[in-house]
Amino acid sequence: MDEKGNEGVVLRRRPVGLLRHDDVELVDLPFPEPPPGGIVVQTDRIGIDATVRSWLQEGEGYFPAVEIGEVVRSSGIGRVVATDSPNFREDDVVTALTGWQRYVALNDDILATNVGPADVVDQEAHMAVYGSAGMTAYVGMLEVGQVKAGDRVLVSAAAGATGSIAAQLAKLQDAVVVGLTGSDDKCRWLVDDLGLDAAVNYRTADVPARLKEHFPKGIDVYFDNVGGSLLDMALARIANEGRVVLCGAISSYNDEHRPPGPANYLNLIQRRASMQGFLSLDHWGRFGEIQPVLEGMVKAGDLKFRTEVFQGLDTAVDALNAMFTGRNTGKIVIEL
Amino acid sequence: MDEKGNEGVVLRRRPVGLLRHDDVELVDLPFPEPPPGGIVVQTDRIGIDATVRSWLQEGEGYFPAVEIGEVVRSSGIGRVVATDSPNFREDDVVTALTGWQRYVALNDDILATNVGPADVVDQEAHMAVYGSAGMTAYVGMLEVGQVKAGDRVLVSAAAGATGSIAAQLAKLQDAVVVGLTGSDDKCRWLVDDLGLDAAVNYRTADVPARLKEHFPKGIDVYFDNVGGSLLDMALARIANEGRVVLCGAISSYNDEHRPPGPANYLNLIQRRASMQGFLSLDHWGRFGEIQPVLEGMVKAGDLKFRTEVFQGLDTAVDALNAMFTGRNTGKIVIEL
Repeated sequence: MDEKGNEGVVLRRRPVGLLRHDDVELVDLPFPEPPPGGIVVQTDRIGIDATVRSWLQEGEGYFPAVEIGEVVRSSGIGRVVATDSPNFREDDVVTALTGWQRYVALNDDILATNVGPADVVDQEAHMAVYGSAGMTAYVGMLEVGQVKAGDRVLVSAAAGATGSIAAQLAKLQDAVVVGLTGSDDKCRWLVDDLGLDAAVNYRTADVPARLKEHFPKGIDVYFDNVGGSLLDMALARIANEGRVVLCGAISSYNDEHRPPGPANYLNLIQRRASMQGFLSLDHWGRFGEIQPVLEGMVKAGDLKFRTEVFQGLDTAVDALNAMFTGRNTGKIVIEL
Repeated sequence: MDEKGNEGVVLRRRPVGLLRHDDVELVDLPFPEPPPGGIVVQTDRIGIDATVRSWLQEGEGYFPAVEIGEVVRSSGIGRVVATDSPNFREDDVVTALTGWQRYVALNDDILATNVGPADVVDQEAHMAVYGSAGMTAYVGMLEVGQVKAGDRVLVSAAAGATGSIAAQLAKLQDAVVVGLTGSDDKCRWLVDDLGLDAAVNYRTADVPARLKEHFPKGIDVYFDNVGGSLLDMALARIANEGRVVLCGAISSYNDEHRPPGPANYLNLIQRRASMQGFLSLDHWGRFGEIQPVLEGMVKAGDLKFRTEVFQGLDTAVDALNAMFTGRNTGKIVIEL
């Protein structure tokens, strides 16, 4: 690749189960020109979300599936290197759906957000907190979940990018917060560093017993990132007027066949409870309102985050799969 | 049984599947005295709700399970025959949890409602519309489901007591309403007499195909009385921001083992949709507000109802089972 070259990871065939290295290919791409009124961005960091895996599948998703031969869709952050838009100058930092590629042509629309000049923007915080993870956590916990002081809150994938922020936002509302996560190390991080009231290692604990202990009066808000059997266990202990915030279902994204549904949904009736799905995408127009709130919390030390950094586009498959094998803490980011 | 005698149906053992005749026993009971400040009611009509079946089972219900040897809990209507309460006179008509018995002692509390003097009260309309069926339909469709003009609405068990009222309330809001029911006769009743836009016989139709045809843009409100596979099919076609009103799950009340959950709940996420459970019981304090609204609709001819009448306490088992075999149209009532 010469200086004016470009490269990206394109889909070669639809994955079955975890994404395999030969399902995709790192290929040379033409260097893009800005579309009329648009920009070209040099991608500095790619953010890995579980939803990327769902975009590789045919289905009735909120975005069309990534086509065979198309660059894998993904969020990212980078700097403007060419502009035909009055709203972007060179070296402005942009968050957008960059995809897994080094340079990307973007229209000047709601999905390409100018977050400020390169010399003042904290790109890592944008990827880890102010992007999809923080927006999802904010809207999901505070607006969909309507968490309030004294609520007893359970968060799954609590050491993940979204879960860790959602859990801290609930603590900042003076809720009692318990996290579900997959290792004792992560449990310690949640309690010792993030200040959660308790954390449960779902791989080793008797989860129903621990939920009974931590939620004697039931779960007021369950912020669900994983679906599957943990959702069913949470529904078994949902409180009267409890709210299940359906943020994702990581446990099913790699399944060829539909996993069984949550049989305990019947409890929603007797407990007058609800399950509400949402997409942070719908709230992207409120980035300018929510991002400063989150940034204020980060700068005040009230909202902590971790990133797990992969280097280079050829690590993209491993970076995505790390979401599903439960080994990551915080946000997974690929640096280019 | 002499003139001052009493009789009732008591539970002898917990049923497995449909209630069997020897699971209960019709026995003589002492004639009750009014408790201090309370009343004695002579039951004229017993209303059959699916929930009666759930009360016969151990579990974490919103009421304790009916004990072995206890009279089966059930709603009913009758006349005051003895009173120690300033709020009730002899011959006032009372709706209450009378149970399956001829005379019942009641406290003067929220569950015993004085609906007026015997010579003016339409007991049949109270059982069929102004009682649990109408309250459930009203709160579920208008408040939980928030149905509005132009919404595309699906109702299961649409020829049943609650479903038929819910469907008509949605029509009165200028929604487009499709009913699911179990016979062609009932389909005709729903369309020809109640004015629904369409009805689907779920026993004979290709339900997913018919839902696709009737809901090309998805289901805005699904008023679910049955759960099971119909819920899953409805979730497959739920619209963006669609609402599933969880009113009941008749299809599972007789199951020994938990039925599978609705695997298509995952659609709630991508479609930003919700499932909300509720109990009409919670809204019983609003009887005085809602009952006159329903009565106005009935008297104006806007809200039609049917009852299926059984005669005598010894028909109670058959009356309850008729709820689950799908043979009834409208409200099942036992006349004493």
